[in-house]
Amino acid sequence: MNGFNFFSPTEFVFGKGRENECGEFVKKYGGSKVLIHYGGQSAVKSGLLDRVKASLDKSGIYWCELGGVKPNPRDTLVYQGIELCRSEKVDLILAVGGGSVIDSAKAIAMGVPYEGDFWDFYSGKRPEKALPVATVLTIAAAGSEGSGDSVITKEDGMLKRGAGGDCLRPRFSIMDPELTQTLPAYQTACGATDIMAHVFERYFTNTPEVEITDRLCEAVLLTMVKETPRVIADPNNYEARANIMWAGTVAHTNIVGVGRDQDWNSHGIEHELSALYDCAHGAGLAVIMPAWMEFVYKHNIMRFCQMATRVFGCNMDFENPENTALAGIRAFRTFLRGIGMPINFAELGAKEEDIPVLVEKFGLGYGLTWGFVRLSSADIAEIYRIAARAEI
Amino acid sequence: MNGFNFFSPTEFVFGKGRENECGEFVKKYGGSKVLIHYGGQSAVKSGLLDRVKASLDKSGIYWCELGGVKPNPRDTLVYQGIELCRSEKVDLILAVGGGSVIDSAKAIAMGVPYEGDFWDFYSGKRPEKALPVATVLTIAAAGSEGSGDSVITKEDGMLKRGAGGDCLRPRFSIMDPELTQTLPAYQTACGATDIMAHVFERYFTNTPEVEITDRLCEAVLLTMVKETPRVIADPNNYEARANIMWAGTVAHTNIVGVGRDQDWNSHGIEHELSALYDCAHGAGLAVIMPAWMEFVYKHNIMRFCQMATRVFGCNMDFENPENTALAGIRAFRTFLRGIGMPINFAELGAKEEDIPVLVEKFGLGYGLTWGFVRLSSADIAEIYRIAARAEI
Repeated sequence: MNGFNFFSPTEFVFGKGRENECGEFVKKYGGSKVLIHYGGQSAVKSGLLDRVKASLDKSGIYWCELGGVKPNPRDTLVYQGIELCRSEKVDLILAVGGGSVIDSAKAIAMGVPYEGDFWDFYSGKRPEKALPVATVLTIAAAGSEGSGDSVITKEDGMLKRGAGGDCLRPRFSIMDPELTQTLPAYQTACGATDIMAHVFERYFTNTPEVEITDRLCEAVLLTMVKETPRVIADPNNYEARANIMWAGTVAHTNIVGVGRDQDWNSHGIEHELSALYDCAHGAGLAVIMPAWMEFVYKHNIMRFCQMATRVFGCNMDFENPENTALAGIRAFRTFLRGIGMPINFAELGAKEEDIPVLVEKFGLGYGLTWGFVRLSSADIAEIYRIAARAEI
Repeated sequence: MNGFNFFSPTEFVFGKGRENECGEFVKKYGGSKVLIHYGGQSAVKSGLLDRVKASLDKSGIYWCELGGVKPNPRDTLVYQGIELCRSEKVDLILAVGGGSVIDSAKAIAMGVPYEGDFWDFYSGKRPEKALPVATVLTIAAAGSEGSGDSVITKEDGMLKRGAGGDCLRPRFSIMDPELTQTLPAYQTACGATDIMAHVFERYFTNTPEVEITDRLCEAVLLTMVKETPRVIADPNNYEARANIMWAGTVAHTNIVGVGRDQDWNSHGIEHELSALYDCAHGAGLAVIMPAWMEFVYKHNIMRFCQMATRVFGCNMDFENPENTALAGIRAFRTFLRGIGMPINFAELGAKEEDIPVLVEKFGLGYGLTWGFVRLSSADIAEIYRIAARAEI
């Protein structure tokens, strides 16, 4: 096991109706002037935004608001948010929404105390300070409610890039599984795919002897395999929603990934898809991740056998382990199809002829990525090709 | 799943030689005058205490020290520590040791700012503030390095009682698995038993539909089943030590136990043994926990089948599930015997004729405990009897 630091100071406030406590929690964490940041009309129509405002009012918290965050959140709105926070002297940003809203809030939070362009933090600069961020989560997916990460898309050129630092970890995150019950099945499945992908990016490692984090990763995956089809079949299944919601957080605080090298190439490869086609990140991952697995599995067949047997319940073929490795990947893709995810370019709305553009935008040139298997531009092109043509 | 708040703000600093960074971390968390709290001579002889002091000196931190913490730490030393912290104006307590040292440090930390008797917090009063505590962990066992709990024994009457509150969670915990390599096999096995017991206390629940925390609990248990025999066979196996150390923390921050009713009766029943005989807590748990399982398993045979099949790899007897439930309990006791733990009163140094005294000290009277199965004094006596006579 590698050495590591693990720091996850977010207070998670979980359960039915807990959003009505957000005023008290803002107060507890020292907020007095809050920016409520949110996305489209669903938070308005559902009455959630009104409940949040009522709770802030009750606690005597001043608030202003900025809606309009889109999936694959844009830099343009971040600049607006920074201006607004400065002029209103905001001291805490409350993100009411999913990963896109939270990531946008984190970007604003870094930008407010920073004299330069906030995009610097998405170009490699490490953030040292940020306004406090808190969240009221409405979709189990990105894990941004417990992570120190943020992904933003620069509209000029549709560049999708990430930033990270412990100062971005939310002070508190309110997680009411009931808020996710109104999500359409497709979005629910996209979220579930994202959660599983966060685990797989950590699971495929070259660090030996990491039984505890292997088992913790598998715990999250087994939960998703059991619970996701249940919420797709019955969106109002509170218990399944609750299990998925906590799984999504555990998947991405990094408690299941400490002490081991991680991969993250599938995320990078997917980001070019969602940047170019503006498709859902989870849907892109459903297309890319099994293709990536098919491309790399020979690097460590036994690790793929472990996934196949422990997560998908495949029988181990001791005479020919490769069969088991491939059966596991097939089981994953079949699972994704079963929850309504696309599994190839056509189903996603992507085009095979765009592969050169995707590889170009990935921007690797003649270099190699880091990860479980270090990839060249040619390797990435091949992964896109496998993804383009995948069938079950 | 029940609603919950989860808050684990401790920074975990994990890996070889990380104790040499403790001065920097004390500084980061605002300490300038530190009490180094420790146990017996092992921390002195190993040179660990000198390394800790050198690191504090290097960071310009003033320190004083108080050693002498015993297993089943006593109130008498806590009073001394409170006096010392007050007279030296200590602003952070650094526990260098295992669960006993950390628990003693937490008791002192609560006592310093409190005008009354610190024992109030071990008699039901909730602590609101405490001096910051930090740890350099030397044994994987109690999980106190990440928890908000503390257990202290009152010498007058040998009463062993617990206190808890988020203000007791350590600011940082330095975890170097190498420091645990010098532990005798018996202490290592006691620690492993304690870790597994922390999970089982959470695992046996009446809350339905808690797949994510079930699976996380099983992840820790599976790791312990794999790694513990490896360190017993080879105390210098760093990788196995590292896996156990992180498992021990994950077992007790409560991330695997949120949203579900928990039991904790085995801990209570064991506390009377270690209070009366001053035996190791882990050894007492090895005797009590399988006995408790035998007494309660009929309350939910399927949950015991789940443990048997998922954790101990038993085959499910679909015709007679009770066989599988019992096979799982037997597998647990066999595992404990295999790592050198006692499994009955004689091996522990306890006496069956003391059972009335143990039940009396438990102090339940005509009431019932809370938990998976609510127990009467007669039930507890019966569990002690099963434990007294257990064989494999």
